[in-house]
Amino acid sequence: MFKKSLILLALAFVSACGANEVADQPWRTLDLNNTVLLTLLHGKVVIELAPQFSPKHVEQFSALVKKSFYDGAKFYRVIDGFVAQAGPKDGSSKDKSVPILAIEGQFTTAKNWSFAPVQNDDLFAATTGFKDGFALARDNSDSAWLTHCPGTLAMARGNEADSASSHFYFVIGQAPRYLDKIMTIFGRVVYGMQHIQAIQRTSVIAGEKAVDSRMHTPIVSMKLMTDVPVNERLLIEVENTESANFSEKLVKRRARSHEFFYKKPPSVLDVCQVPVNSRLVKLQG
Amino acid sequence: MFKKSLILLALAFVSACGANEVADQPWRTLDLNNTVLLTLLHGKVVIELAPQFSPKHVEQFSALVKKSFYDGAKFYRVIDGFVAQAGPKDGSSKDKSVPILAIEGQFTTAKNWSFAPVQNDDLFAATTGFKDGFALARDNSDSAWLTHCPGTLAMARGNEADSASSHFYFVIGQAPRYLDKIMTIFGRVVYGMQHIQAIQRTSVIAGEKAVDSRMHTPIVSMKLMTDVPVNERLLIEVENTESANFSEKLVKRRARSHEFFYKKPPSVLDVCQVPVNSRLVKLQG
Repeated sequence: MFKKSLILLALAFVSACGANEVADQPWRTLDLNNTVLLTLLHGKVVIELAPQFSPKHVEQFSALVKKSFYDGAKFYRVIDGFVAQAGPKDGSSKDKSVPILAIEGQFTTAKNWSFAPVQNDDLFAATTGFKDGFALARDNSDSAWLTHCPGTLAMARGNEADSASSHFYFVIGQAPRYLDKIMTIFGRVVYGMQHIQAIQRTSVIAGEKAVDSRMHTPIVSMKLMTDVPVNERLLIEVENTESANFSEKLVKRRARSHEFFYKKPPSVLDVCQVPVNSRLVKLQG
Repeated sequence: MFKKSLILLALAFVSACGANEVADQPWRTLDLNNTVLLTLLHGKVVIELAPQFSPKHVEQFSALVKKSFYDGAKFYRVIDGFVAQAGPKDGSSKDKSVPILAIEGQFTTAKNWSFAPVQNDDLFAATTGFKDGFALARDNSDSAWLTHCPGTLAMARGNEADSASSHFYFVIGQAPRYLDKIMTIFGRVVYGMQHIQAIQRTSVIAGEKAVDSRMHTPIVSMKLMTDVPVNERLLIEVENTESANFSEKLVKRRARSHEFFYKKPPSVLDVCQVPVNSRLVKLQG
C-alpha cells in the first residue's frame, strides 16, 4: 500500500509541475488583500481568505472587515473541542443590515484542475488533499470542497442552506467533517492559532456556573492587512502545498522512517493532521 | 449503509447489557483513587486514569503524583495543534530517579469482552469504539488499544519502546492517530480541557522570537483526588459509554436528523469527534 501511494504522489507532483510554474517554490507569500489581521486582547491572529473557493463569502466578509464591522463584537458561542463563533448581537439592526449569502459549500473543478493528493478512502470522502494551503476533499465527480479542520474559518448559518450573513466560526477541536459541504469555509488561520484556542469558552457543563457574558472574548479589531500601517503588519509566508517540498513532506510523513517509530503506523494520513507551516517575514519586501 | 449501522449498534447494545449490569446508568461516578486534580495558574483540570488498560503506567504515575513529584514542573514542549508535554528537567537527578516502564500500547481482549462500537473501516483501524469513556480501536484479532484524541494523556518516551518514565503529554490538536499502539495512553481530561488548551506554546515558527523558558506554564500542583481536602474536590461524573443512552446518542449523531442538516453528511463517525460529556457534582455524596 505504501509503495503504491508513493507512486501516486510522485505522479501527482509531475502533473502539478506541468500545470503550475511556481510549483518549485517551497514558500508562498500571502496576498495582503486577502489577509486579515485579527487582534484579540491576548494576541494577534492572521487569517488567509480563500476567494478562489468561496468568492461571494470572501467579498462580503472583506467588505465588512474593511468598514470595521466586527470591531467590538464578541465570541458569544465558544464550545471547547468544537468552535469559537463571533458576530454582532443576534437580531440587532447591525446584524440585520447584512445581506444573506447563497451557500458556497463546494466548487466545480475543471478538467485540468490539479491539487496535492493526501489520502484515498478517507472516512468522509473518496480523496483528500491540499490546494493553495487549504485542506479539501473530493468525490469521483468534478466537485471538490474545503474540509473542516482545526483553524478553519467558516460562516455560521441558520437551518436554511442560504442563510449565512456575518456570523463566523473558527474550528478549535477535532475536525467536524460532518459539516463539510453544508457550510461555507472561506479562510483559515495561518498564524496565532494558540490565541484562538485561548478564547474564553461560553459553554459550560451541567453543574457548572454559567460564564457571565461580560467575560466573553471581544474582537479588539479586525482589519485587512492592506489597511494595517506598514510597520504593524504581520507578514506571513505559508508552505506551498503544490510544491515538490510539500510533496516530499507528505511522503516522509507517511513513511515515518525516524527510529522513534520502532513499529510503523499504518501508512495513511488524516488531511487535518498534516500541518501546513507558516513563517514570519519580519521586513516587508 | 446507515440502516446496517443502526442494526449493528443495536445488537452491540443488547450484548453490552448482558455483560454489564450498570449498562442502564447514563452517568458514571469517577473512582477518586484514579482521578487526578491538576492545578494550573489559570484553572483546574480533572484527569481520569485508566488502570484497566495501562496498569503499570497508572501505578507509577499515581505514585509520582502522590509524592508531589510534578509540582513545579514545566510544560516545556508545547506545540499548537499537537501536544503539551511536561516533566522534570531532562537528565536531572529527579528525572533519572524514576524507573523505566515497559510499553503498554495495546491490550488483549477476552472472548466476551464488550465495548460500544462507533465505526468500522476507520482510517487507522478496522473498528473504533468506546470503553469506560475511553476512545479505542481494534483490528480483527483479540487486541485493542486506546486511541490518541484531543485530551488524551500519554507517557512520552525515547526511541526505544520501553523508555517512558515520568514525562507525559496531553493531545491538544487533531488526533495524532499514527501514535496509537506505539505510545502508552493512560488517562484523559474529563474537565477543564480549555485550560490545557491555554498552556503557553513553546514552539515558534521561523522568524518568530523564541519563547523565554521562564514563560513556560508551570504545574502548580498535581494531586490524587483522594488527597485533596474534601471541600476542594472537583467531583465529576462522565457519560457511561456502555449505556443505552450513549448508544442512542451515537445513533442520533450518525443520523443528523436535525433540520439544520438540509443535506445529510456521510453516516460515519470519527471516534475522536464524539464528545463524552462530563458533569460537575457540586456536593460529595
